[in-house]
Amino acid sequence: MKCAIIAVGTEVVSGDIVNTNAPYIANFLKPYGIRTVLQMAVEDREKDIVKAVKRGLKKADLVVTTGGLGPTYDDITKKAVACALERELIRDEYSVEMLNAYFRRAEKKMVESNLSQCYFPKGSRVIQNPNGTAPASITHTKKGTVMMLPGPPIEVSALLQTEDIRSYLESLKKEEMIETTLKFFGIGESHLEEILSDYMKKEKNLILAPYAKTGEVQLKITAKGETKEEAQELTDSLKEKLYELVGEYIYAEGNVSLEEVLLAELMKNNHTLVTAESCTGGMIGETITAIPGSSEVYLGGVITYSNPLKMKLCSVFRETLEEYGAVSKGTACEMAEGARKNLGSDIAVSVTGIAGPGGGTEEKPVGLVYIGVSTKEKTDAYRFHFVGNRDKVRRLSVKNALYLALQASKELGMSKK
Amino acid sequence: MKCAIIAVGTEVVSGDIVNTNAPYIANFLKPYGIRTVLQMAVEDREKDIVKAVKRGLKKADLVVTTGGLGPTYDDITKKAVACALERELIRDEYSVEMLNAYFRRAEKKMVESNLSQCYFPKGSRVIQNPNGTAPASITHTKKGTVMMLPGPPIEVSALLQTEDIRSYLESLKKEEMIETTLKFFGIGESHLEEILSDYMKKEKNLILAPYAKTGEVQLKITAKGETKEEAQELTDSLKEKLYELVGEYIYAEGNVSLEEVLLAELMKNNHTLVTAESCTGGMIGETITAIPGSSEVYLGGVITYSNPLKMKLCSVFRETLEEYGAVSKGTACEMAEGARKNLGSDIAVSVTGIAGPGGGTEEKPVGLVYIGVSTKEKTDAYRFHFVGNRDKVRRLSVKNALYLALQASKELGMSKK
Repeated sequence: MKCAIIAVGTEVVSGDIVNTNAPYIANFLKPYGIRTVLQMAVEDREKDIVKAVKRGLKKADLVVTTGGLGPTYDDITKKAVACALERELIRDEYSVEMLNAYFRRAEKKMVESNLSQCYFPKGSRVIQNPNGTAPASITHTKKGTVMMLPGPPIEVSALLQTEDIRSYLESLKKEEMIETTLKFFGIGESHLEEILSDYMKKEKNLILAPYAKTGEVQLKITAKGETKEEAQELTDSLKEKLYELVGEYIYAEGNVSLEEVLLAELMKNNHTLVTAESCTGGMIGETITAIPGSSEVYLGGVITYSNPLKMKLCSVFRETLEEYGAVSKGTACEMAEGARKNLGSDIAVSVTGIAGPGGGTEEKPVGLVYIGVSTKEKTDAYRFHFVGNRDKVRRLSVKNALYLALQASKELGMSKK
Repeated sequence: MKCAIIAVGTEVVSGDIVNTNAPYIANFLKPYGIRTVLQMAVEDREKDIVKAVKRGLKKADLVVTTGGLGPTYDDITKKAVACALERELIRDEYSVEMLNAYFRRAEKKMVESNLSQCYFPKGSRVIQNPNGTAPASITHTKKGTVMMLPGPPIEVSALLQTEDIRSYLESLKKEEMIETTLKFFGIGESHLEEILSDYMKKEKNLILAPYAKTGEVQLKITAKGETKEEAQELTDSLKEKLYELVGEYIYAEGNVSLEEVLLAELMKNNHTLVTAESCTGGMIGETITAIPGSSEVYLGGVITYSNPLKMKLCSVFRETLEEYGAVSKGTACEMAEGARKNLGSDIAVSVTGIAGPGGGTEEKPVGLVYIGVSTKEKTDAYRFHFVGNRDKVRRLSVKNALYLALQASKELGMSKK
């Protein structure tokens, strides 16, 4: 099945924003056997949108639009799609109800123009938006199928994840496919690919797609078969080989993040965690608390961006700071140990480093980061030299801190038994 | 003058890579008075490319293609463009010479297929590639103009920066353009648009484009004129009106973020800031410390995710937590005041709320957030009810906390004088 993706919005066409929706959607559709063959971005002009939708329907079975579903006068995607599909726009009463409820909840006044968000081409399936006021819709006609999604990426991803859309896509599937994801830490993409090269091309019903992402590598395995069992068998035998070859680097199976694996390990072992952050400035805490339920094991932390706060909140010795500096193994160790004791947890992880772009010296260059880990059994710190800009150095610090906390919880869990 | 940008390459269409070339090119062309009105991405299929180029030429005066100029069999952009323009492909001898020289320099052997890179539609201006082997070209015909660029972003930017391409673009300039951005906080996109509607259509040389982004609205003003002065005058008179009508919501001019404005205000007033975060879990600290140099005014903070840490680090009273709960005005006030006093800053901002998806009750629903602000003159907390998923509630909390800290610094700065 073929798909065309159309981004509607002058801000996209003019280059004010990068169109990340299109690749997100294209990748989301792949496991359902849907191949994207055309992308377009057009301005908020009815004629242009109509033309693009018609072109898309000619080229593909499914047209997905993003943007132009808002309440303002330049939001005209639905009008244009209705025109291209030769369907009239009908008011969806359930959406009106939901919109009213939204405005009551948000304690905001609804203006007349908001109601325009509740009209859809006749016969559409309407999907409520978990992250916004504009619902999505799927309209199936003889001319083809059009799925309309709003523009903000946070709304696009939430809508695609809804049961409504997933089950619709599931219903389109023709051959069986099983996707498995293995997550690696501590091994580079090219290194992994070298090891895997033998297996990458051998079996045409197996697709191995390694994908590197700030410090980790994700390997997506897609196995196809006439039956689910056939695809599963193919997956299992490959996985067995992979665990044999590179098992030590695999930290998870499936679409789970490092922070989720860490939280699960902490819960399993009944460990609590605190953080002491300098150059990451709260990013570790933020990453952990992005997971619902993290409060069960994550007590909180300190952001000791200044030296006085390192002393005050983590009991780092003035002498350590004076003799070795804030970015040193000693400071990292004392930050972790001090945070653990002062805040009262089983495990503490600390980060102190030079994120750049300024602040580097020959001896302590930008990218130098110490990550400390403390448990009641052991306190230690590890030296890293990350390459990249400020954001990348901070993200790599967070990933490695999470990984070290995970190892600490595993070790401490073992020694308990 | 209008432009259409076409990305050629299955890897783009299928979502394997994000098309950053299109926004880069669109933005690069703006100062030359060239407005991009259409973007497309097509697979490496001659028919598709021909169709896209024809569509582009119909819609725009200039078509810019990226990708498909390499030496391999699927690089067929030039063949397709020649077909669309009805021009034959001619070998460019200077390019052959340069290619030979390149391979000698790189001490590599040139294969026959490399020569395909030296063929261009008859009458093209050929521009040598500073960062690769595939030259670019500009073909001017009665049907319109096509500029072909290679795919790698590093080659695209290098080629656009060449004297050849810049002087060509300069020669196209007809009118002058000035772009200004105003940033708003505390007013919705539709509300702002309602207020602005009178001015949105009145003046054809003025384009107003509002764009909403998690809690804030950005308004881009594009003014055109025969001279720079004319465009500037138009901009100035509109800005004057805007400050009159909605000035209270404008927090910045130009492409700066709320956190940058906050840091600048703190520096100007010589104020220090600390944070006390519960449901945002470090996200405020992370946002602030993402800006290099933030350590000058941001001392750090505490992540008091658990109640004991709220008491320990922020001196929140047990009675407050027991009587009003962790998510309450009282707790938010005490968190802010406690953090300010314990950590020793001029201003403290605190956040406590229910980010969801769990934890909500009828009385205290998901999305309920209190943000506290404390200075030596005043401590107060504000109630918000944000709508959205966990991530959105947290992001909106951060934005509002930054905004309240900004107001606090302004007020405190004034009272000092």
